[in-house]
Amino acid sequence: MNQNDELYKAGLLLHGHKCPAMPMGLRAGVAALKALGVERATDGQLTALVEIDSDHCATCYADGVMMATGCTFGKGNIRKLGYGKFVLTLIDNKSGRSVRVATRNEVIKRNQESEFIQFRKKGVPASKIAAELINPAVDFILAESDENLFKIDPIQEIKLTPGRPHDFNTHICEECGEVMVERYARIKNGKTVCIPCAEKSA
Amino acid sequence: MNQNDELYKAGLLLHGHKCPAMPMGLRAGVAALKALGVERATDGQLTALVEIDSDHCATCYADGVMMATGCTFGKGNIRKLGYGKFVLTLIDNKSGRSVRVATRNEVIKRNQESEFIQFRKKGVPASKIAAELINPAVDFILAESDENLFKIDPIQEIKLTPGRPHDFNTHICEECGEVMVERYARIKNGKTVCIPCAEKSA
Repeated sequence: MNQNDELYKAGLLLHGHKCPAMPMGLRAGVAALKALGVERATDGQLTALVEIDSDHCATCYADGVMMATGCTFGKGNIRKLGYGKFVLTLIDNKSGRSVRVATRNEVIKRNQESEFIQFRKKGVPASKIAAELINPAVDFILAESDENLFKIDPIQEIKLTPGRPHDFNTHICEECGEVMVERYARIKNGKTVCIPCAEKSA
Repeated sequence: MNQNDELYKAGLLLHGHKCPAMPMGLRAGVAALKALGVERATDGQLTALVEIDSDHCATCYADGVMMATGCTFGKGNIRKLGYGKFVLTLIDNKSGRSVRVATRNEVIKRNQESEFIQFRKKGVPASKIAAELINPAVDFILAESDENLFKIDPIQEIKLTPGRPHDFNTHICEECGEVMVERYARIKNGKTVCIPCAEKSA
Protein backbone atom coordinates (compact mmCIF):
# COMPACT_ATOMS: atom_id res chain seq x y z
CA MET A 1 0.00 0.00 0.00
CA ASN A 2 1.13 3.58 -0.59
CA GLN A 3 -0.31 7.07 -0.26
CA ASN A 4 -2.01 6.74 -3.68
CA ASP A 5 -4.03 3.75 -2.54
CA GLU A 6 -7.81 4.37 -2.65
CA LEU A 7 -8.26 2.97 0.85
CA TYR A 8 -5.57 5.25 2.26
CA LYS A 9 -7.00 8.30 0.51
CA ALA A 10 -10.52 7.55 1.73
CA GLY A 11 -9.22 6.99 5.27
CA LEU A 12 -7.38 10.31 5.16
CA LEU A 13 -10.51 12.10 3.97
CA LEU A 14 -12.56 10.64 6.84
CA HIS A 15 -9.87 11.18 9.43
CA GLY A 16 -8.96 14.77 8.56
CA HIS A 17 -5.20 14.81 9.14
CA LYS A 18 -2.10 12.88 8.18
CA CYS A 19 -0.64 10.66 10.92
CA PRO A 20 0.92 7.18 11.24
CA ALA A 21 -1.87 5.73 13.44
CA MET A 22 -4.75 5.85 10.94
CA PRO A 23 -2.69 3.84 8.37
CA MET A 24 -1.69 1.44 11.16
CA GLY A 25 -5.40 0.68 11.68
CA LEU A 26 -5.90 0.41 7.94
CA ARG A 27 -3.14 -2.17 7.65
CA ALA A 28 -4.41 -4.06 10.73
CA GLY A 29 -7.91 -4.20 9.23
CA VAL A 30 -6.69 -5.45 5.87
CA ALA A 31 -4.45 -8.04 7.55
CA ALA A 32 -7.38 -9.28 9.67
CA LEU A 33 -9.70 -9.59 6.63
CA LYS A 34 -6.98 -11.55 4.85
CA ALA A 35 -6.37 -13.84 7.82
CA LEU A 36 -10.10 -14.65 8.05
CA GLY A 37 -10.48 -14.83 4.27
CA VAL A 38 -13.50 -12.52 4.31
CA GLU A 39 -14.56 -9.36 2.51
CA ARG A 40 -15.05 -5.91 4.05
CA ALA A 41 -18.45 -5.70 5.84
CA THR A 42 -21.03 -4.04 3.59
CA ASP A 43 -23.60 -4.44 6.39
CA GLY A 44 -23.04 -5.98 9.82
CA GLN A 45 -21.28 -9.18 8.74
CA LEU A 46 -18.20 -8.49 10.88
CA THR A 47 -17.50 -7.10 14.34
CA ALA A 48 -14.31 -5.23 15.21
CA LEU A 49 -13.06 -5.00 18.79
CA VAL A 50 -10.29 -2.45 19.18
CA GLU A 51 -8.31 -2.36 22.42
CA ILE A 52 -7.72 1.40 22.37
CA ASP A 53 -9.63 3.94 24.46
CA SER A 54 -9.86 7.74 24.06
CA ASP A 55 -7.54 10.64 24.93
CA HIS A 56 -4.28 8.84 24.29
CA CYS A 57 -1.73 8.59 21.51
CA ALA A 58 -2.69 6.85 18.27
CA THR A 59 -6.44 6.39 18.90
CA CYS A 60 -6.62 7.46 15.23
CA TYR A 61 -5.88 3.75 14.66
CA ALA A 62 -9.64 3.06 14.95
CA ASP A 63 -10.50 5.27 11.95
CA GLY A 64 -8.21 3.15 9.78
CA VAL A 65 -9.84 -0.02 11.16
CA MET A 66 -13.31 1.32 10.24
CA MET A 67 -12.24 2.25 6.73
CA ALA A 68 -10.56 -1.10 6.08
CA THR A 69 -13.11 -3.45 7.64
CA GLY A 70 -16.42 -1.63 7.10
CA CYS A 71 -17.08 -2.03 10.84
CA THR A 72 -18.26 1.49 11.63
CA PHE A 73 -19.46 3.61 14.54
CA GLY A 74 -22.74 4.24 12.71
CA LYS A 75 -23.47 0.60 11.95
CA GLY A 76 -22.48 -0.16 15.54
CA ASN A 77 -20.20 -3.10 14.75
CA ILE A 78 -16.99 -1.63 16.16
CA ARG A 79 -16.31 -1.30 19.86
CA LYS A 80 -13.47 0.11 21.97
CA LEU A 81 -12.37 -2.22 24.77
CA GLY A 82 -10.53 0.59 26.56
CA TYR A 83 -7.20 -1.17 27.30
CA GLY A 84 -4.95 1.47 25.69
CA LYS A 85 -3.50 -1.22 23.38
CA PHE A 86 -3.12 -1.17 19.60
CA VAL A 87 -4.85 -4.44 18.91
CA LEU A 88 -7.76 -5.44 16.69
CA THR A 89 -9.89 -8.56 17.03
CA LEU A 90 -12.01 -9.07 13.93
CA ILE A 91 -14.95 -11.49 14.16
CA ASP A 92 -16.92 -13.07 11.32
CA ASN A 93 -20.37 -12.98 12.91
CA LYS A 94 -21.77 -15.84 10.84
CA SER A 95 -19.07 -18.43 11.48
CA GLY A 96 -17.76 -17.11 14.81
CA ARG A 97 -14.21 -17.28 13.41
CA SER A 98 -12.07 -14.48 14.82
CA VAL A 99 -8.52 -13.25 14.60
CA ARG A 100 -6.47 -11.03 16.93
CA VAL A 101 -3.97 -8.70 15.24
CA ALA A 102 -1.58 -6.98 17.66
CA THR A 103 0.72 -4.19 16.51
CA ARG A 104 4.34 -5.16 17.19
CA ASN A 105 6.08 -3.30 20.02
CA GLU A 106 8.90 -2.19 17.71
CA VAL A 107 6.37 -0.58 15.35
CA ILE A 108 4.79 1.38 18.20
CA LYS A 109 8.26 2.33 19.50
CA ARG A 110 9.22 3.60 16.06
CA ASN A 111 6.09 5.75 15.94
CA GLN A 112 6.69 7.02 19.47
CA GLU A 113 10.19 8.12 18.47
CA SER A 114 9.07 9.80 15.22
CA GLU A 115 9.37 13.56 14.75
CA PHE A 116 5.58 13.62 14.43
CA ILE A 117 5.07 12.43 18.02
CA GLN A 118 7.65 14.89 19.38
CA PHE A 119 5.50 17.72 17.99
CA ARG A 120 2.28 16.11 19.23
CA LYS A 121 3.74 15.81 22.75
CA LYS A 122 4.38 19.56 22.68
CA GLY A 123 0.67 20.06 21.94
CA VAL A 124 0.93 20.81 18.22
CA PRO A 125 -2.26 19.59 16.49
CA ALA A 126 -1.56 16.88 13.90
CA SER A 127 -2.94 19.03 11.06
CA LYS A 128 -0.34 21.74 11.82
CA ILE A 129 2.68 19.44 11.44
CA ALA A 130 4.38 19.60 8.02
CA ALA A 131 3.62 16.62 5.76
CA GLU A 132 7.39 16.12 5.09
CA LEU A 133 7.86 15.34 8.79
CA ILE A 134 4.97 12.85 8.87
CA ASN A 135 5.53 11.10 5.53
CA PRO A 136 8.44 8.83 6.61
CA ALA A 137 6.34 7.33 9.42
CA VAL A 138 3.26 6.97 7.18
CA ASP A 139 5.23 5.47 4.28
CA PHE A 140 6.88 2.95 6.61
CA ILE A 141 3.49 1.74 7.93
CA LEU A 142 1.95 1.54 4.45
CA ALA A 143 4.88 -0.33 2.85
CA GLU A 144 6.00 -2.75 5.58
CA SER A 145 4.95 -6.43 5.49
CA ASP A 146 2.07 -7.68 7.68
CA GLU A 147 4.59 -9.96 9.36
CA ASN A 148 6.82 -7.06 10.39
CA LEU A 149 3.93 -4.88 11.56
CA PHE A 150 1.75 -7.37 13.40
CA LYS A 151 1.65 -10.42 15.58
CA ILE A 152 -1.32 -12.31 14.10
CA ASP A 153 -2.75 -15.01 16.37
CA PRO A 154 -4.19 -18.27 15.02
CA ILE A 155 -7.90 -18.14 14.11
CA GLN A 156 -10.18 -18.83 17.07
CA GLU A 157 -13.76 -20.03 16.97
CA ILE A 158 -15.83 -18.08 19.45
CA LYS A 159 -19.43 -18.51 20.49
CA LEU A 160 -21.35 -15.33 19.80
CA THR A 161 -24.40 -14.31 21.78
CA PRO A 162 -26.91 -13.04 19.22
CA GLY A 163 -27.37 -9.24 19.28
CA ARG A 164 -30.69 -7.50 19.88
CA PRO A 165 -32.90 -7.39 16.79
CA HIS A 166 -33.04 -3.98 15.10
CA ASP A 167 -35.95 -1.85 16.28
CA PHE A 168 -37.72 -0.23 13.31
CA ASN A 169 -40.70 1.22 15.23
CA THR A 170 -40.91 4.87 16.18
CA HIS A 171 -43.10 7.11 18.35
CA ILE A 172 -43.50 10.83 18.76
CA CYS A 173 -42.65 12.21 22.20
CA GLU A 174 -45.79 13.73 23.72
CA GLU A 175 -43.70 16.37 25.42
CA CYS A 176 -41.11 17.71 22.95
CA GLY A 177 -42.84 16.43 19.80
CA GLU A 178 -39.68 14.76 18.43
CA VAL A 179 -39.47 11.22 17.06
CA MET A 180 -37.72 8.46 18.99
CA VAL A 181 -37.24 4.75 18.35
CA GLU A 182 -39.78 2.63 20.28
CA ARG A 183 -37.19 0.90 22.49
CA TYR A 184 -36.23 4.33 23.86
CA ALA A 185 -39.77 5.51 24.57
CA ARG A 186 -40.51 6.00 28.28
CA ILE A 187 -43.77 6.60 30.16
CA LYS A 188 -44.12 9.70 32.33
CA ASN A 189 -47.42 10.57 34.01
CA GLY A 190 -49.15 8.33 31.49
CA LYS A 191 -47.58 10.06 28.49
CA THR A 192 -45.22 8.49 25.96
CA VAL A 193 -42.02 10.53 26.08
CA CYS A 194 -38.37 10.40 24.97
CA ILE A 195 -35.53 9.80 27.47
CA PRO A 196 -34.47 13.47 27.82
CA CYS A 197 -38.10 14.49 28.53
CA ALA A 198 -38.56 11.55 30.94
CA GLU A 199 -35.47 12.64 32.86
CA LYS A 200 -36.34 16.35 32.98
CA SER A 201 -37.61 17.45 36.39
CA ALA A 202 -41.31 18.28 36.23
CA MET B 1 -25.94 17.69 -2.86
CA ASN B 2 -26.37 14.67 -5.14
CA GLN B 3 -24.90 11.19 -5.48
CA ASN B 4 -21.90 12.57 -7.41
CA ASP B 5 -20.86 14.77 -4.50
CA GLU B 6 -17.39 13.92 -3.12
CA LEU B 7 -18.67 13.89 0.45
CA TYR B 8 -21.51 11.50 -0.42
CA LYS B 9 -19.18 9.18 -2.32
CA ALA B 10 -16.66 9.13 0.54
CA GLY B 11 -19.45 8.48 3.05
CA LEU B 12 -20.74 5.60 0.95
CA LEU B 13 -17.26 4.09 0.71
CA LEU B 14 -16.84 4.22 4.50
CA HIS B 15 -20.35 3.03 5.24
CA GLY B 16 -20.45 0.09 2.82
CA HIS B 17 -24.05 0.17 1.59
CA LYS B 18 -26.56 2.59 0.12
CA CYS B 19 -29.28 3.80 2.51
CA PRO B 20 -31.10 7.05 3.34
CA ALA B 21 -29.75 7.35 6.91
CA MET B 22 -26.06 7.89 6.10
CA PRO B 23 -26.92 10.86 3.80
CA MET B 24 -29.26 12.19 6.51
CA GLY B 25 -26.27 12.37 8.86
CA LEU B 26 -24.17 13.91 6.11
CA ARG B 27 -26.74 16.66 5.58
CA ALA B 28 -27.15 17.19 9.36
CA GLY B 29 -23.38 17.55 9.74
CA VAL B 30 -23.07 20.04 6.90
CA ALA B 31 -26.05 22.04 8.22
CA ALA B 32 -24.49 22.16 11.70
CA LEU B 33 -21.11 23.32 10.37
CA LYS B 34 -22.89 26.04 8.39
CA ALA B 35 -24.97 27.14 11.39
CA LEU B 36 -21.83 27.48 13.54
CA GLY B 37 -19.80 28.99 10.68
CA VAL B 38 -16.94 26.55 11.24
CA GLU B 39 -14.90 24.16 9.09
CA ARG B 40 -14.85 20.37 9.32
CA ALA B 41 -12.61 19.22 12.24
CA THR B 42 -9.16 18.29 10.96
CA ASP B 43 -8.16 17.41 14.53
CA GLY B 44 -10.34 17.65 17.65
CA GLN B 45 -11.70 21.17 17.14
CA LEU B 46 -15.34 20.02 17.25
CA THR B 47 -17.39 17.54 19.28
CA ALA B 48 -20.45 15.77 17.87
CA LEU B 49 -23.13 14.37 20.16
CA VAL B 50 -25.56 12.12 18.32
CA GLU B 51 -28.75 11.04 20.07
CA ILE B 52 -28.93 7.62 18.39
CA ASP B 53 -27.93 4.34 20.03
CA SER B 54 -27.21 0.93 18.44
CA ASP B 55 -29.41 -1.88 17.07
CA HIS B 56 -32.19 0.33 15.73
CA CYS B 57 -33.22 1.79 12.39
CA ALA B 58 -31.08 4.49 10.81
CA THR B 59 -28.07 4.37 13.17
CA CYS B 60 -26.17 4.67 9.86
CA TYR B 61 -26.90 8.39 10.41
CA ALA B 62 -23.75 8.59 12.58
CA ASP B 63 -21.44 7.55 9.71
CA GLY B 64 -22.70 10.52 7.69
CA VAL B 65 -22.14 12.81 10.67
CA MET B 66 -18.54 11.57 10.99
CA MET B 67 -17.84 12.08 7.30
CA ALA B 68 -19.33 15.59 7.24
CA THR B 69 -17.96 16.97 10.51
CA GLY B 70 -14.61 15.20 10.87
CA CYS B 71 -15.74 14.14 14.37
CA THR B 72 -14.72 10.49 14.30
CA PHE B 73 -14.78 7.37 16.44
CA GLY B 74 -10.99 7.15 16.18
CA LYS B 75 -10.32 10.74 17.21
CA GLY B 76 -12.87 10.23 19.98
CA ASN B 77 -14.81 13.44 19.37
CA ILE B 78 -18.16 11.85 18.55
CA ARG B 79 -20.40 10.27 21.16
CA LYS B 80 -23.74 8.44 21.11
CA LEU B 81 -26.19 9.69 23.75
CA GLY B 82 -28.39 6.59 23.36
CA TYR B 83 -31.83 8.26 23.13
CA GLY B 84 -32.87 6.59 19.84
CA LYS B 85 -33.36 10.05 18.28
CA PHE B 86 -32.00 11.41 14.99
CA VAL B 87 -30.47 14.55 16.39
CA LEU B 88 -26.96 16.01 16.23
CA THR B 89 -25.49 18.60 18.59
CA LEU B 90 -22.26 20.01 17.21
CA ILE B 91 -19.97 21.90 19.56
CA ASP B 92 -17.09 24.22 18.69
CA ASN B 93 -14.72 23.25 21.51
CA LYS B 94 -12.80 26.54 21.47
CA SER B 95 -15.72 28.94 21.74
CA GLY B 96 -18.26 26.63 23.39
CA ARG B 97 -20.80 27.61 20.72
CA SER B 98 -23.09 24.71 19.90
CA VAL B 99 -26.04 23.95 17.69
CA ARG B 100 -28.70 21.24 17.89
CA VAL B 101 -29.97 19.91 14.54
CA ALA B 102 -33.04 17.64 14.83
CA THR B 103 -34.33 15.68 11.83
CA ARG B 104 -37.93 16.66 11.14
CA ASN B 105 -40.59 14.06 12.00
CA GLU B 106 -41.96 14.12 8.43
CA VAL B 107 -38.52 13.24 7.06
CA ILE B 108 -38.20 10.27 9.38
CA LYS B 109 -41.80 9.22 8.56
CA ARG B 110 -41.01 9.37 4.85
CA ASN B 111 -37.95 7.14 5.38
CA GLN B 112 -39.97 4.74 7.54
CA GLU B 113 -42.53 4.39 4.75
CA SER B 114 -39.93 3.90 1.99
CA GLU B 115 -39.65 0.60 0.12
CA PHE B 116 -36.14 0.33 1.51
CA ILE B 117 -37.39 0.09 5.11
CA GLN B 118 -40.07 -2.46 4.19
CA PHE B 119 -37.30 -4.78 2.99
CA ARG B 120 -35.12 -4.01 6.02
CA LYS B 121 -38.02 -4.89 8.37
CA LYS B 122 -38.21 -8.28 6.66
CA GLY B 123 -34.55 -8.81 7.55
CA VAL B 124 -33.05 -8.14 4.10
CA PRO B 125 -29.53 -6.67 4.56
CA ALA B 126 -29.24 -3.14 3.11
CA SER B 127 -26.56 -4.23 0.63
CA LYS B 128 -28.95 -6.80 -0.88
CA ILE B 129 -31.68 -4.26 -1.73
CA ALA B 130 -31.65 -3.02 -5.34
CA ALA B 131 -30.23 0.51 -5.78
CA GLU B 132 -33.32 1.53 -7.82
CA LEU B 133 -35.46 0.96 -4.73
CA ILE B 134 -33.15 2.98 -2.48
CA ASN B 135 -32.33 5.87 -4.83
CA PRO B 136 -35.59 7.84 -4.42
CA ALA B 137 -35.12 8.03 -0.63
CA VAL B 138 -31.41 8.90 -0.97
CA ASP B 139 -32.00 11.52 -3.67
CA PHE B 140 -34.73 13.17 -1.59
CA ILE B 141 -32.42 13.52 1.44
CA LEU B 142 -29.52 14.81 -0.65
CA ALA B 143 -31.56 17.39 -2.60
CA GLU B 144 -34.01 18.77 0.00
CA SER B 145 -33.34 22.12 1.74
CA ASP B 146 -31.87 22.24 5.27
CA GLU B 147 -35.07 23.96 6.36
CA ASN B 148 -37.25 21.10 5.15
CA LEU B 149 -35.01 18.39 6.61
CA PHE B 150 -34.13 19.86 9.99
CA LYS B 151 -35.28 21.89 12.94
CA ILE B 152 -32.15 23.90 13.72
CA ASP B 153 -32.14 25.48 17.19
CA PRO B 154 -30.53 28.85 17.90
CA ILE B 155 -26.81 28.74 18.77
CA GLN B 156 -26.17 28.10 22.46
CA GLU B 157 -23.03 28.93 24.41
CA ILE B 158 -22.13 26.03 26.66
CA LYS B 159 -19.41 25.73 29.29
CA LEU B 160 -17.11 22.86 28.42
CA THR B 161 -15.20 20.92 31.03
CA PRO B 162 -11.71 20.43 29.59
CA GLY B 163 -11.00 16.85 28.50
CA ARG B 164 -8.17 14.72 29.83
CA PRO B 165 -4.80 15.54 28.28
CA HIS B 166 -3.62 12.99 25.72
CA ASP B 167 -1.36 10.33 27.21
CA PHE B 168 1.69 9.74 25.00
CA ASN B 169 3.60 7.44 27.38
CA THR B 170 3.69 3.69 26.92
CA HIS B 171 4.88 0.63 28.87
CA ILE B 172 5.38 -3.01 28.04
CA CYS B 173 3.20 -5.46 29.98
CA GLU B 174 5.45 -7.70 32.07
CA GLU B 175 3.05 -10.59 31.57
CA CYS B 176 1.99 -10.69 27.89
CA GLY B 177 4.82 -8.52 26.56
CA GLU B 178 2.48 -6.20 24.64
CA VAL B 179 2.60 -2.39 24.70
CA MET B 180 -0.06 -0.37 26.51
CA VAL B 181 -0.55 3.34 27.10
CA GLU B 182 0.66 4.38 30.58
CA ARG B 183 -2.80 5.41 31.85
CA TYR B 184 -3.97 1.82 31.30
CA ALA B 185 -1.03 0.16 33.05
CA ARG B 186 -1.98 -1.71 36.24
CA ILE B 187 0.12 -3.23 39.00
CA LYS B 188 -0.26 -6.92 39.81
CA ASN B 189 1.99 -8.65 42.35
CA GLY B 190 4.47 -5.80 41.89
CA LYS B 191 4.58 -6.18 38.09
CA THR B 192 3.46 -3.59 35.53
CA VAL B 193 0.74 -5.25 33.46
CA CYS B 194 -2.01 -4.40 30.97
CA ILE B 195 -5.70 -4.49 31.97
CA PRO B 196 -6.49 -7.94 30.45
CA CYS B 197 -3.49 -9.47 32.28
CA ALA B 198 -4.43 -7.64 35.51
CA GLU B 199 -7.93 -9.08 35.30
CA LYS B 200 -6.89 -12.65 34.44
CA SER B 201 -7.19 -15.02 37.37
CA ALA B 202 -3.74 -16.08 38.59
